Amino acid sequence: MHPITSFSELTKHLQNTNERKHLVVVNPSDVQTFEAVLRAVDAGLVHATMLGDSKHYDMAFIEAHPMLEFIECKDLKAASERAVAMVKAGDGDILMKGLVNTDVLLKAILSKEHGLVPYGNVVTFIAAMEIPSYPKLLFMSDPAVIPAPNLRQRTAMIEYAVRMTGNFGIARPKIALLHGTEKPNPKLNFMDDYLHIIQEARKGVFGDAIVDGPLDIFLALNPELGSIKQVNTPIQGDADVVIFPGFEAANVFYKTVITFAGAEMGGILFGTDKPVVMTSRSDTAASKFNSIALAGIF
Amino acid sequence: MHPITSFSELTKHLQNTNERKHLVVVNPSDVQTFEAVLRAVDAGLVHATMLGDSKHYDMAFIEAHPMLEFIECKDLKAASERAVAMVKAGDGDILMKGLVNTDVLLKAILSKEHGLVPYGNVVTFIAAMEIPSYPKLLFMSDPAVIPAPNLRQRTAMIEYAVRMTGNFGIARPKIALLHGTEKPNPKLNFMDDYLHIIQEARKGVFGDAIVDGPLDIFLALNPELGSIKQVNTPIQGDADVVIFPGFEAANVFYKTVITFAGAEMGGILFGTDKPVVMTSRSDTAASKFNSIALAGIF
Repeated sequence: MHPITSFSELTKHLQNTNERKHLVVVNPSDVQTFEAVLRAVDAGLVHATMLGDSKHYDMAFIEAHPMLEFIECKDLKAASERAVAMVKAGDGDILMKGLVNTDVLLKAILSKEHGLVPYGNVVTFIAAMEIPSYPKLLFMSDPAVIPAPNLRQRTAMIEYAVRMTGNFGIARPKIALLHGTEKPNPKLNFMDDYLHIIQEARKGVFGDAIVDGPLDIFLALNPELGSIKQVNTPIQGDADVVIFPGFEAANVFYKTVITFAGAEMGGILFGTDKPVVMTSRSDTAASKFNSIALAGIF
Repeated sequence: MHPITSFSELTKHLQNTNERKHLVVVNPSDVQTFEAVLRAVDAGLVHATMLGDSKHYDMAFIEAHPMLEFIECKDLKAASERAVAMVKAGDGDILMKGLVNTDVLLKAILSKEHGLVPYGNVVTFIAAMEIPSYPKLLFMSDPAVIPAPNLRQRTAMIEYAVRMTGNFGIARPKIALLHGTEKPNPKLNFMDDYLHIIQEARKGVFGDAIVDGPLDIFLALNPELGSIKQVNTPIQGDADVVIFPGFEAANVFYKTVITFAGAEMGGILFGTDKPVVMTSRSDTAASKFNSIALAGIF
């Protein structure tokens, strides 16, 4: 399999599988989510079940559409629980958040009895970014869910990234553990985590992945400026995945490439039984569509 | 005074003052630093004294140049101490780091007896960035020196930013206190600092500055995507200054806009008696030149 290097290639790849996934969406009553769902339906990627209050929708349109289904729910808590239950029961491949408070949907997802998280699993967010000035998709973790990851959570992030890149046809993903500088600083509490993860990677715990760090953005993603530092790293400005020390830096990164470098992104929750498209209000329809495509590869 | 919105405008502004500053450079034996110094000399901004080992230089060229002077020093520690002493004694307006370990120069700068830091001053790094997709210069603090600022350090960053933007002709600078989200989260230890700083700003402690936060990158710098969030902030995607929660996120930000958005930057140390150009190996000659210009405005 050729590596998938852009969102349009991802869409084509999914179209070639000729298999529609079943998308279950909680309250897609905002224009961006609704448009993204329709685009995914029209592209042949999914058929969709929408849950919410019918008064927010053009029900004639939905009822007439062979690939759309609607389930009336009394409120968004009920819609969230019903959607999670459907996916859990196997009647749904992808769960998606529409205009619903993250807390409400997350509570249903994380419910011990009725939720989507196997006991002990780390739930974290992984995003794919298409940056016009970067030659391939860049995966990153975690800009949204875990503020200050611990070793177990960082390890899970790497495992998930390896699975994700594997599905994209990247046999030997280059995974950069980021930090402000490339100099190991024992005063920073995540440094021990990084060193441990790299040791594990050398033992083959993460398969064929190349894991190195601490690296700064230049060493991880900028072959030209990175090489000036003369640091010996197998990543050499060509990372497939960047793992951030914490949520702050990760969040700054993705919002910066969107704002100043014309990046497009998609992202999903990982660690759940089935992929969850957990977008935010400021995501465009394009990025919500990309997120559905990303979820569709599992 | 019209606000200065780019590095080329800054250079023109300094040229119009018709006043050469005295630049004192520790070991400019790397191509980037040497080139930047020569450019600043040729542009009429400075005359320069270089300290180091003459065997690394074309001494005939330096001796023949009316705006260049050379001082032979036995090692880089001696060169650093001599350079700091010159600037401290008033024989030098700007101190600049060349190819010398940051620790060595910083030790001379921070020396209690012979250094450049008045008792009790916060020393921090402030950078100016010219991002092609942003309509004006953007100032930021601190990507390099203080890993996790405390309230006193954050307050100093704001004060320095107000002085910096004032020199650039920005009468009412918009200063965004950044965070991954715009939602105040009392669990994050800097949040109290942010709320305190905003209260102080409302009392006028920072003059006419508009200070708001916590804001994410979209609300601070992206008028289009920021407005979707419908958060009431006077910054509205038009910040002049961004203050980061910590070094990690700040460092990621500036290296990301350089790598993916074609940004140029300059930066100086603030809180010292005289401005210090503290660049790093991976800085280009252009960014070292910008840093000299930035220091030249004080």
